[in-house]
Amino acid sequence: MIFGAVEIGGTKTDMSVGTSYEDMADPVRISTTDPDETIGRIIEFFADHEVAAVGVASFGPLHLSPSSSRIGTMMFTPKPGWSGTPLHHRLSEGLGLPVTIDTDVNGAARGEGRWGAAQGMSNFVYVTVGTGIGAGVVVGGQPIGGERHPEAGHIVVRRHPDDRHEGSCPYHGDCLEGLAAGPSLEARFGRPETWPGNDVVLEMTVHYLAQAMVALVYTVAPERIVVGGGVSRLPGLHERLRDRVATLLAGYPETPELDLLISEPGLGDRSGLAGALLLAAAGAP
Amino acid sequence: MIFGAVEIGGTKTDMSVGTSYEDMADPVRISTTDPDETIGRIIEFFADHEVAAVGVASFGPLHLSPSSSRIGTMMFTPKPGWSGTPLHHRLSEGLGLPVTIDTDVNGAARGEGRWGAAQGMSNFVYVTVGTGIGAGVVVGGQPIGGERHPEAGHIVVRRHPDDRHEGSCPYHGDCLEGLAAGPSLEARFGRPETWPGNDVVLEMTVHYLAQAMVALVYTVAPERIVVGGGVSRLPGLHERLRDRVATLLAGYPETPELDLLISEPGLGDRSGLAGALLLAAAGAP
Repeated sequence: MIFGAVEIGGTKTDMSVGTSYEDMADPVRISTTDPDETIGRIIEFFADHEVAAVGVASFGPLHLSPSSSRIGTMMFTPKPGWSGTPLHHRLSEGLGLPVTIDTDVNGAARGEGRWGAAQGMSNFVYVTVGTGIGAGVVVGGQPIGGERHPEAGHIVVRRHPDDRHEGSCPYHGDCLEGLAAGPSLEARFGRPETWPGNDVVLEMTVHYLAQAMVALVYTVAPERIVVGGGVSRLPGLHERLRDRVATLLAGYPETPELDLLISEPGLGDRSGLAGALLLAAAGAP
Repeated sequence: MIFGAVEIGGTKTDMSVGTSYEDMADPVRISTTDPDETIGRIIEFFADHEVAAVGVASFGPLHLSPSSSRIGTMMFTPKPGWSGTPLHHRLSEGLGLPVTIDTDVNGAARGEGRWGAAQGMSNFVYVTVGTGIGAGVVVGGQPIGGERHPEAGHIVVRRHPDDRHEGSCPYHGDCLEGLAAGPSLEARFGRPETWPGNDVVLEMTVHYLAQAMVALVYTVAPERIVVGGGVSRLPGLHERLRDRVATLLAGYPETPELDLLISEPGLGDRSGLAGALLLAAAGAP
């Protein structure tokens, strides 16, 4: 059975088809513009493909309570035009197919759990660090979701003593996302192309992300934390992050080897699409 | 069927018997001294009671992996004499009964989920604030545990600008527990009897605990956080904590009413014993 997979990010949307991650076609990428245009182009794409069902991993926050009539509707989001968009409804009407939707990070977590760096684990986390910071938190084999879902990008962090940035989060100012996501780094350090090799960028990012790793270790006790997203591809980030987390945990409680705990994604930037395939399969007739 | 319940805390141990929380006898309290004496007195207590099985909610950290031969063994703990104590083994041998063990906070979470403030909820957290700070994190109806369990007392927090205390945690210094648990408050403000009505104590405690609530909301998305333990009984703590958490969340994402989210325990200081009864029932033949 062939399934459709869509990952809707804040800036780009990827689409593909396949029976499984192993035979998934190279994704087609479009810009995420306004909802009308973006949803229209998704519907167009699948008009050319015979699929049994479509899975969607989308930026949010989303209403995901199974009992809610607003399931798959976008909550308030700073992305212009998207607040209140009934994403699930419009896609399933437009496609005439079963559509199953989850958050982008839960999608990526599902993909990594099935085919990537968290295979066989029942408690793990997928963290993305890009335009925003988010986490898909899997406990007992299932991503936490439904009525509410984690928003791990918005935890309170201890500021770096040399950091004068007021913070870029429209809600919290200097929460984790306001200090370590792409826009906040751009505000301090300029264009992303200039970041690799700049030790201050790496140090600042690791200072904040390490605190998030500690919060996740101490609240959900995961077997692994997979760290992906554009900012995570800064050269040397995973290594320094492991060192810093080890320092912060200070050996309490007896912890697993940190090179096993903190991992790069096994599926590169296709974790979310892989998870969308799984969502499609779960919703197929 | 009559069950035995034990809650082993860092300073005191409570024991009781019952078929359920509703008919549980008033607990007998002893001091938690060294392991030999404490375990001896627990065995003595149940020699006088006909019980089918015993449940234990204990301070930790504990080895709780079901596959480990060290299940129920105390890991390294600052409490003198207890590191490495094979608690489960010694109790089940000494009692000649099935013994089921979990962390103190998971025990309390189980009790609150069945008979207390989190009845009918599948995702919730029990936080204790006393000699230490810990959290039992329930997801999908089950406390996170096994190979590793949460240690939410040790997250990194942003310091209060007026706080000069270096922090009392032997591992991390000024982590949450190092700044907001009983010993750190005593180091700054003297004997606990003097705390009620001292606004600086309340403010300092709330400043730190609110950050933990935010970390829990954003990492595990609970339906409710039950806050218990000795320090939580400071007059006005829950109210001010709700206000501060509302300020920190800043309406993102659309959140439930905070008086529903943050709650006092429904079972007072017997949540852990109630959970221990449930553990006993689960392990009974």
